[in-house]
Amino acid sequence: MVGAGQLARMCAQAAIGLGVKFTVLAADPQESAAQVVPSTVIGNHDNVDDLLAFASDCDVITFDHEHVPTEHLDALIAAGIAVRPGPHALVNAQDKLQMRTTLSAAGIPAPMWREVTSAEDVAEFATTAGWPVVLKTARGGYDGKGVMVVTSAEEAAVVLSGSNVRWLVEEKVDFTCELAVQVARSPHGQAAVYPVVQTIQRDGICREVIAPAPIDEDTAMQAQAIALQIAQLLDVTGMLAVEMFLTADGVVVNELAMRPHNSGHWTIDGAVTSQFEQHLRAVLDLPLGSTAALAPHVVMVNVLGGDHPDMYHAYLHCMARDPGLKIHMYGKEVRPGRKVGHVTVVGDDLEDLLERGRHAAAYLTGEITE
Amino acid sequence: MVGAGQLARMCAQAAIGLGVKFTVLAADPQESAAQVVPSTVIGNHDNVDDLLAFASDCDVITFDHEHVPTEHLDALIAAGIAVRPGPHALVNAQDKLQMRTTLSAAGIPAPMWREVTSAEDVAEFATTAGWPVVLKTARGGYDGKGVMVVTSAEEAAVVLSGSNVRWLVEEKVDFTCELAVQVARSPHGQAAVYPVVQTIQRDGICREVIAPAPIDEDTAMQAQAIALQIAQLLDVTGMLAVEMFLTADGVVVNELAMRPHNSGHWTIDGAVTSQFEQHLRAVLDLPLGSTAALAPHVVMVNVLGGDHPDMYHAYLHCMARDPGLKIHMYGKEVRPGRKVGHVTVVGDDLEDLLERGRHAAAYLTGEITE
Repeated sequence: MVGAGQLARMCAQAAIGLGVKFTVLAADPQESAAQVVPSTVIGNHDNVDDLLAFASDCDVITFDHEHVPTEHLDALIAAGIAVRPGPHALVNAQDKLQMRTTLSAAGIPAPMWREVTSAEDVAEFATTAGWPVVLKTARGGYDGKGVMVVTSAEEAAVVLSGSNVRWLVEEKVDFTCELAVQVARSPHGQAAVYPVVQTIQRDGICREVIAPAPIDEDTAMQAQAIALQIAQLLDVTGMLAVEMFLTADGVVVNELAMRPHNSGHWTIDGAVTSQFEQHLRAVLDLPLGSTAALAPHVVMVNVLGGDHPDMYHAYLHCMARDPGLKIHMYGKEVRPGRKVGHVTVVGDDLEDLLERGRHAAAYLTGEITE
Repeated sequence: MVGAGQLARMCAQAAIGLGVKFTVLAADPQESAAQVVPSTVIGNHDNVDDLLAFASDCDVITFDHEHVPTEHLDALIAAGIAVRPGPHALVNAQDKLQMRTTLSAAGIPAPMWREVTSAEDVAEFATTAGWPVVLKTARGGYDGKGVMVVTSAEEAAVVLSGSNVRWLVEEKVDFTCELAVQVARSPHGQAAVYPVVQTIQRDGICREVIAPAPIDEDTAMQAQAIALQIAQLLDVTGMLAVEMFLTADGVVVNELAMRPHNSGHWTIDGAVTSQFEQHLRAVLDLPLGSTAALAPHVVMVNVLGGDHPDMYHAYLHCMARDPGLKIHMYGKEVRPGRKVGHVTVVGDDLEDLLERGRHAAAYLTGEITE
């Protein structure tokens, strides 16, 4: 796996159970996955020689992020290496203009959007979509970065000025809630879809996930059908996460990720097959596992770094207070706002699970002290 | 962790989630846990210098087997190292005479037993207990080794002749079924007990585990109470597995293990807190996790090596046939009769789970081909 963040770390756990040999290309030996994976290779995912050297010992290459340049992926394939997902699929998770173009051509529900190069383009778009609108860089955004809400042509001009990257504008969708759907797809075309989840974001960062999403069955089936359709359309191998908005008219696709995704962390403790195991099964072309949930409700809350670098006593407190919590720590240095872990709770009573998950995450972050 | 078999391998998985730094002392870099643990130390658990060098980088030392000599454990403690479980506890899992003496003194139900040094001792014991009887070496037995059923003084004489180890004899218990209870206990005395399980052995090797055991609630509570009593009596830290026989008069204690145990593998997929996570929590004096099961029934079946060294196609077949299976592979070379993995299935219908678990294990072993 290229990249050694927490997604790679949780894949390493799954690889142990599968009996699959797993290693990572890490920028630094202190990265989350590098700490727990033997024979970690240190290198730069932007350097094609580092990638080729890493891949020379691997049967299959996959990714914990979307940042490897397409031309490097092509070089890996030219060297005879199995790259999953392939660059033709992955580009849709790397480039939002590419993704919007491909999905809209296939008639998949999306917000109104267009490519823009000037504040005039944005203003023209707003005459139909209405202000405010959302400006996005085609590439490089994550966790709210590269996404700006603007309320006027003047603001759009400030955002776009001096920029030499490609931009698109999207309507600001009036949504009831945000949803996500995980799909696994393997090279020979087997696909499996997980229950639809609700995601709750703050400041562009996912904070909570509720599985299954509290929506009606028709909507859930529509969302799952769209996610499966996208996986096939884009020839995805591995996990695909489709983030969606639920509107009065149904769901529209917001963003894609082609890897295990924060909205699927609940599956470690809450589903028969975790998204991390499933990603490995999919990219290795092993038969996929059951996506069934293990309990009526599962809640996952992210633990963000707070002001206190040492979480140890909070960790003890939360474990002692609630023996049913599944607290996952990523081995990352605590910095304010950084995802350093997550808490999952499974059970029958959603309100109870939400209270317990939120309490633990807030206590670990340091937002509360009782 | 001293030792690098599959128990250490599964502890490594749990350590990743807990955010705990974990390494192993392995005899060989190809051992099950050594394959997946960074900075594995190669050394001999019988060599006190190897143990001291390994321990110098650790806050706490624990074990995946009972084979470290007591005097070496004492040397570690003299060097200021936290050894959990401590030698005063562990000796009861190393030495069956010690265990029987201590437990009988506390009035804990046991088969009739006595130390023997001659065939005459055995014959005298059999006048009360009846033939056949069970001869056991005080130390060194596991998976049926060091345990012999003998039907006469002549047979006993053959077993004991030329032996320079200590022996005990036990009545051959007329049991309804075999049970096991897992208890976790931490240095400050917190204890947590798992649901009682039924274990099904063949040729002295555990083959299947059914959780919870199909026994009445009073018996289950008696078994749990005995296991908790033993954990406290022996001052165990970490996991304790108490193997028991269920007889017409209630349960009697058969053997003890002070580590994660085969009869607790079901907890990885079937309980809120796996025995491997729980062992780490206990030896690190972290608060213990919930021992609740995640489903009404859980079945675990061991995968033993068969005649075919390559299980890959059987692995694919089982995954494809039953996406709900949790197949765990230990990365061990396949040899006939060797434990190389296990299969767990969770659900509502015990007969269905048994059929699925047994089918997969038999297919992986090569006993069946359809």
